[in-house]
Amino acid sequence: MSKIAPISGFPEYSPAQRIVEQRFLDVIRETFELHGFCSIETRAIEPVERLRAQGEDADKEIYGISRLAAYAEEVRWGLHFDLTVPFARYVLENAGTLDFPFRRYQIQKAWRGERPQEGRYREFTQADIDVVDVGMLAPHFEAEIPLVVADVFAKFPIGDFVIQVNNRKLANGFFAGLGIADIAGTLRIIDKLDKIGPDAVRDLLIEGGASAAQAQACLRLAEIRTPDLAFIEQVRALGVEHPLLDEGIDALAQVIEIAAHNAPGKVVAALKIARGLDYYTGTVYETQIVGQESWGAVCSGGRYDALASDGKTTYPGVGISIGVSRILGLLFGLDRLTASRATPSAVLVAVNDEADRPRSTAIATALRARGIPCEVAPKADKFGKQIRYADRRGIPFVWFPHADGDQVKDIRSGDQTPVDAAEWSPPDDDLRAAIVLR
Amino acid sequence: MSKIAPISGFPEYSPAQRIVEQRFLDVIRETFELHGFCSIETRAIEPVERLRAQGEDADKEIYGISRLAAYAEEVRWGLHFDLTVPFARYVLENAGTLDFPFRRYQIQKAWRGERPQEGRYREFTQADIDVVDVGMLAPHFEAEIPLVVADVFAKFPIGDFVIQVNNRKLANGFFAGLGIADIAGTLRIIDKLDKIGPDAVRDLLIEGGASAAQAQACLRLAEIRTPDLAFIEQVRALGVEHPLLDEGIDALAQVIEIAAHNAPGKVVAALKIARGLDYYTGTVYETQIVGQESWGAVCSGGRYDALASDGKTTYPGVGISIGVSRILGLLFGLDRLTASRATPSAVLVAVNDEADRPRSTAIATALRARGIPCEVAPKADKFGKQIRYADRRGIPFVWFPHADGDQVKDIRSGDQTPVDAAEWSPPDDDLRAAIVLR
Repeated sequence: MSKIAPISGFPEYSPAQRIVEQRFLDVIRETFELHGFCSIETRAIEPVERLRAQGEDADKEIYGISRLAAYAEEVRWGLHFDLTVPFARYVLENAGTLDFPFRRYQIQKAWRGERPQEGRYREFTQADIDVVDVGMLAPHFEAEIPLVVADVFAKFPIGDFVIQVNNRKLANGFFAGLGIADIAGTLRIIDKLDKIGPDAVRDLLIEGGASAAQAQACLRLAEIRTPDLAFIEQVRALGVEHPLLDEGIDALAQVIEIAAHNAPGKVVAALKIARGLDYYTGTVYETQIVGQESWGAVCSGGRYDALASDGKTTYPGVGISIGVSRILGLLFGLDRLTASRATPSAVLVAVNDEADRPRSTAIATALRARGIPCEVAPKADKFGKQIRYADRRGIPFVWFPHADGDQVKDIRSGDQTPVDAAEWSPPDDDLRAAIVLR
Repeated sequence: MSKIAPISGFPEYSPAQRIVEQRFLDVIRETFELHGFCSIETRAIEPVERLRAQGEDADKEIYGISRLAAYAEEVRWGLHFDLTVPFARYVLENAGTLDFPFRRYQIQKAWRGERPQEGRYREFTQADIDVVDVGMLAPHFEAEIPLVVADVFAKFPIGDFVIQVNNRKLANGFFAGLGIADIAGTLRIIDKLDKIGPDAVRDLLIEGGASAAQAQACLRLAEIRTPDLAFIEQVRALGVEHPLLDEGIDALAQVIEIAAHNAPGKVVAALKIARGLDYYTGTVYETQIVGQESWGAVCSGGRYDALASDGKTTYPGVGISIGVSRILGLLFGLDRLTASRATPSAVLVAVNDEADRPRSTAIATALRARGIPCEVAPKADKFGKQIRYADRRGIPFVWFPHADGDQVKDIRSGDQTPVDAAEWSPPDDDLRAAIVLR
């Protein structure tokens, strides 16, 4: 038998960490639903050729699967490495029964065979929303995505955050207006700004064929970052003109204006945001945790004119993905987050002696019927030992059954009071485990 | 590119079905937590040799995985085919930090390469609870499991159910007292009773070496089924004696007695319940939906003296598994369950014209801040068309913004009333999609 050992890149949480993860996932789900997104789940696997179509490094990243009995034969299926490829397939497969525009969320695991490092895993959870329509997608959906994200992140106990927004048309129009030929290449170089700095970006742009003046203009565009419509004037001041630039400025202005009213202070126009991926065609998003900028984007996405296509019909979409495992992994790595207890139980019902256990079980049944999570002590030990059992798990209350009337002890304060299982409830704050920030 | 097509055995739900599934999973999770079980999630993969150790047909059932780039090489990992094997490994890996007895629940997908059929899938969701301890596990935990299951199933909108309980010691002691040599073999034959009937079971028992009288006694034991302690007298009336039989009777009596007080009418002693698997050593459970007995057991488990072992320490456990995909698959197959709407949105905020969209967005933001799921109409169509958009999705309310005061329409009744986004709420029953039984 193989040695018992962790598998690199496949993290597993402790029960307390899992409580934190569930709380994050609950917030995400509730908020996505408040914004009218439907849940779907797709199967874990897709045909290998569908996965391979997405990138050159596919064979390094994709986990193929086959039944062991047929393993030597050709591999037909692979585990999905994101939630966008399966969603695109789902849309095509169910186009006949879905109502468009279709607003869906999807919170699932994905698998990627890359080298694991802090905050990057081989098995990870993502939470995606997308709006997809048939043929045309109205631009107002691009303004809606940051409102959902702002609503989610405001409920996370991780401090301030900023959703940086740009528009591909703005950048592309600017580069075109400057007379730059390789627009996609320029975007990919600008995308490296945070990693390699402005000097190295300038060098790369010039190596790529830009003049010093063009490179300088690109860098000045990328410096523009405003929480309001001031970006418009700053772009105009650079003196570049192009119809696509105008279109991009208008589109970005709409997103910023809607955000100013519905998620004030959370969204900025950040003209350096490029998102390397080729398929984005409009608004692009990157979310950062304030003070943790070195983590990079923890939630990003954008608009694509062809999320899916069957050759006849094209389905444009706009969406964003929250890197749940990335955020939690980095927070757990800093040891900043935990749960107030490692169990859902708010109460441990003590047991006087094993013959009296049915009385304790009946008390637990009565408490549960009123929504109070509890458990019965595993052993009729001395009460001191039963209290230590609760203490080790962070269970705040111990219930003592007694013929003359039950009592409950708050083991943090030591307060002990007479109680009735048909009436007593713990304070609201103690009913569920709390998230603890350190 | 491969044709877009379902993959047999990997079902995907519609948005409405997914709402039903989520409601079932919420009930399961809440109830497991009320009973003090901690959530864990294990990685999707285990070393292949750990999975293979569990059965002879393993190579047919296990999906192996490798990165495509390394696919020809030896396969090291496989997808888990249940949640017990990974839990046993998790216990051994984390024994140093877990508090025992450890009560855990686990709701996850599992994968099995078997031939798909109605209610049996290659990708499926299970919901497991187990209590595991070090060295010794107190028998009262065996009485606790049916209370959790009864609590869960009572909240499912699928009618009545019965948890059938037996004890391996009772059956084994009875067979031993009868002088039967092959006790495990006898149990495996009795396990086929529901499938092949008593005559075929008698023939198999006799083929296996039992006398006609022994076979007859086994069948009479298997016929015993009582909702209370009456089973004791009926077993005694068969005149078989063995110390292990006495032990089994006492253990089963305890489980039945606790259930009579805490889950009345839901648990029966059913002495035909055998559970084919070799590793059970005490109480065994099989849950049936009343009126759907042909579905077989939808939730089963038992006690095993060695859930996990590292050679030095043994971890006994007791647990049960709810076949979530099995239950939902069969119910969806009967077309008996759906959701009242295919979206979380309770309200569609209409849009007067595109220039006025920001007003509608602000209304939606105000409603969401008070926990009301809603969405803004995708297009400033004629109101009739916007109402049809809501109707198609089952959204019950349409909100009309107006300078002279907003109005909301219940599109089922046609009632329209003046409202304020800072105050109005839909009736509680309309806030979330309801589960609809047909």
